[in-house]
Amino acid sequence: MSEAVSRPTLEAVAARAGVSRATVSRVVNGADGVREALAERVRRAVEELGYVPNQAARSLVTKRHDAVAVVIAEPETRVFADPFFALQLRGISKELTAHDAQLVLLLTEGRDDHARVGRYLAGGHVDGALVFSLHLDDPLPGLIQRAGVPTVFGGRPGWSDGSRRVVYVDSDNRGGAREAVRHLAGLGRRRIGHITGPLDQTSAVDRLDGYRDVMVDADPRLLVESDFTPADGERAMRELLDRCPDLDAVFAANDLTASGALRVLRERGLRVPEDVAVVGFDDMLPVAEQTDPPLTTVRQDIEEMGRLMTRLLLRGLDRGDGGTGQSGEAAVGGAPRSVVLPTTLIRRASA
Amino acid sequence: MSEAVSRPTLEAVAARAGVSRATVSRVVNGADGVREALAERVRRAVEELGYVPNQAARSLVTKRHDAVAVVIAEPETRVFADPFFALQLRGISKELTAHDAQLVLLLTEGRDDHARVGRYLAGGHVDGALVFSLHLDDPLPGLIQRAGVPTVFGGRPGWSDGSRRVVYVDSDNRGGAREAVRHLAGLGRRRIGHITGPLDQTSAVDRLDGYRDVMVDADPRLLVESDFTPADGERAMRELLDRCPDLDAVFAANDLTASGALRVLRERGLRVPEDVAVVGFDDMLPVAEQTDPPLTTVRQDIEEMGRLMTRLLLRGLDRGDGGTGQSGEAAVGGAPRSVVLPTTLIRRASA
Repeated sequence: MSEAVSRPTLEAVAARAGVSRATVSRVVNGADGVREALAERVRRAVEELGYVPNQAARSLVTKRHDAVAVVIAEPETRVFADPFFALQLRGISKELTAHDAQLVLLLTEGRDDHARVGRYLAGGHVDGALVFSLHLDDPLPGLIQRAGVPTVFGGRPGWSDGSRRVVYVDSDNRGGAREAVRHLAGLGRRRIGHITGPLDQTSAVDRLDGYRDVMVDADPRLLVESDFTPADGERAMRELLDRCPDLDAVFAANDLTASGALRVLRERGLRVPEDVAVVGFDDMLPVAEQTDPPLTTVRQDIEEMGRLMTRLLLRGLDRGDGGTGQSGEAAVGGAPRSVVLPTTLIRRASA
Repeated sequence: MSEAVSRPTLEAVAARAGVSRATVSRVVNGADGVREALAERVRRAVEELGYVPNQAARSLVTKRHDAVAVVIAEPETRVFADPFFALQLRGISKELTAHDAQLVLLLTEGRDDHARVGRYLAGGHVDGALVFSLHLDDPLPGLIQRAGVPTVFGGRPGWSDGSRRVVYVDSDNRGGAREAVRHLAGLGRRRIGHITGPLDQTSAVDRLDGYRDVMVDADPRLLVESDFTPADGERAMRELLDRCPDLDAVFAANDLTASGALRVLRERGLRVPEDVAVVGFDDMLPVAEQTDPPLTTVRQDIEEMGRLMTRLLLRGLDRGDGGTGQSGEAAVGGAPRSVVLPTTLIRRASA
């Protein structure tokens, strides 16, 4: 561990700059009313001594930690295995760095650890939180609300309780799914299967609703739930083919399950798109381009979603009482509103 | 330092500001109903005395935040692209979760953001830090030292300044490299190239030293530096082949560059291992098993390194005054010492 080094004090800065402690304090906290020449001397002393203001005290005064927590409600292994999260974090990281705010990623092994995440959020270590991949019955939203930390969600949270005002960024999952299935129907496909995502997540439910908008009274055997991973996409595709050997198309709720489905179709000797057409969701690169054949899919701009969540949160913090940790809702004020981004069908070879 | 002993109290703040304890409490807790002039006096007293309020104060009493920062001195895109970091984080996450401590991953866009990381570490948000992938000339070690937060490093830090006591976990990079190159020499190879890692990192320097232990007076054209990525492994392999067409073996400093080298050898119509034998370093799965041909490599237990770093840090925190952020060295006590783990040569088809 690093060696003991005494941190320079406010007194040391004052002594070096030849000013009073109060003057140092005012300069460090960005208060007005200090002559520029004096302020410059203080700043030089701060730099020379490597003075770091007592963050907790400074936070109390400025009401800012210049740090934002990111919570992904998935086990850490999933966070690193699914490129979706890396893309969203890329957008968040760029935006936070542009505002010189620290990205604090709180990792967990699973839902059992969410109470601890709630305690950290309540502990006054961050100005706000960006939370995504929520599942129904997850205690996290309640814990966050209790922590009182301003929050923007990635994806529409699934609770029906209207008492909670939330700000979220989402894609038009239902509209995108509708377009995907209409495209398959337009190719003359009639037995269109759907590999859904986990139905305790609104993104998966909304995509299923979009499928149903087109496939009214669809054969229930055409639906198989998956957990959004490639391996589970393979399992779901096998199940679909076993149930419905006459299947002529599949809409997979994300590109990773679509990639698994394509592997199974090839393994069974079925040609894509001639025998079975396949459409995914995400347009996750390079995955969607590197499948065999390349994947027709519904594009959502994942990195931009991360950026937008961050901008909404920072705007809320600037406008409201953000960062006091007293009121997440007040912090949002009447300002930022949820945003639903449009999706686009990207045609490649698979459908 | 004895700052913990003379920690300022609410009473001290009240006395300095010339107000009642109740008034201090109201201001500190963000309650309304205190005249702005009074509130300003309280805030100034808080700042001047370095008084740490409420939640943070409780942490000081218990001396624990139950949170550990992880800092990877690479841009966030690299953190998510290189499975090495995911493996190390997996070990850290499991170990911290077993101790109900929160993993706080501080992401950056690059070295320019390290000052901000230093501020966060100094801010009293974590009990300790795990820091890895340091590069020479990185300001991070100095910033961490100034922050006074107990730290364990992943990989031997590269500074020569003996004044800093450090605890680190590393693999026997030099011994492992020596074994790799001896293995190639034992196969009768004489023109053995080496794709090094970034030579501002001790892991890369140590592996180069191991190579030189065997290849005394090696032709300098047999050495090409890379940045540890697959793409740069490809570039380095092309350069090696252009310089030394008679090359009969390559020791790549990690599996990712080895995978890039294998692609280039195939592209040039060279057979592995018949024409050119290849050995990597890491035994990163599934990479090392899925290359064509599967990779002979030097195994280091990356996940175990993460676990061990975490255990050493937590042991230091338990024994010393860890978590006050006042004295990293005291926190270590005489207890945890650096550990260098052995490596093993894993033979597959490439050499």
